[in-house]
Amino acid sequence: MRKIEHIGIAVKSLSTAIPLYEALLNTGCYKTETVETEMVNTAFFLTGESKIELLESADEQGVIAKFIEKKGEGIHHIAFDVANIYAEMARLKAEGFTLLNETPKRGADNKLVCFVHPKGTNGVLVELCQEIIES
Amino acid sequence: MRKIEHIGIAVKSLSTAIPLYEALLNTGCYKTETVETEMVNTAFFLTGESKIELLESADEQGVIAKFIEKKGEGIHHIAFDVANIYAEMARLKAEGFTLLNETPKRGADNKLVCFVHPKGTNGVLVELCQEIIES
Repeated sequence: MRKIEHIGIAVKSLSTAIPLYEALLNTGCYKTETVETEMVNTAFFLTGESKIELLESADEQGVIAKFIEKKGEGIHHIAFDVANIYAEMARLKAEGFTLLNETPKRGADNKLVCFVHPKGTNGVLVELCQEIIES
Repeated sequence: MRKIEHIGIAVKSLSTAIPLYEALLNTGCYKTETVETEMVNTAFFLTGESKIELLESADEQGVIAKFIEKKGEGIHHIAFDVANIYAEMARLKAEGFTLLNETPKRGADNKLVCFVHPKGTNGVLVELCQEIIES
């Protein structure tokens, strides 16, 4: 875990949340991206070495729509940057944490990602992120 | 907002959460501190330029106890480092955000802090932090 890569925040509408977070953070949204496999539209803001990622459901059956239905808008997950996601997944498994996917999957922002079950982390959904370097 | 200063996580018990987060983050807890005015015991971990702050209620009537009773354990707030908390409070007020305290108060880890109402930030409790430099 080298640093906080980003904090994911579930919002109902990017079109209203983007200008609000631009005002809050005093910086512009530098990228939006849809992750089809997760049915989510994302918007990114830089803050120091980390990012804020707003998450809007692209489908009413999506995980973000279900999260908001259950808990309301708010912080959805914390993502940590790792050098080697396979090594970190093995380390966490050996420590007794439960991984939500057995192999890394492709996430937003050119990343390989894996989630850790929040039941083992005091209710916090933790994501591991490794930058994909195209050779 | 210069960087994410820390992420605050509400936990029932520091004595069980500290070793768990040491295993998760692969780093030792470097400080514990009680903030009497907030009735909270805190434990800190470094991750890059930011910190993870675990929050345990020191009193069953405290804000963290009430948060856990209502929402369960999990992420409680995001804190951003600011150069001048008075200027940042004025800027956010002018942008239409609601501040939860009119003047900065003393927080954990030698900081002046101010909270922003989560109703205006898509459910996210935001803290501003300025390091206190003793002259």
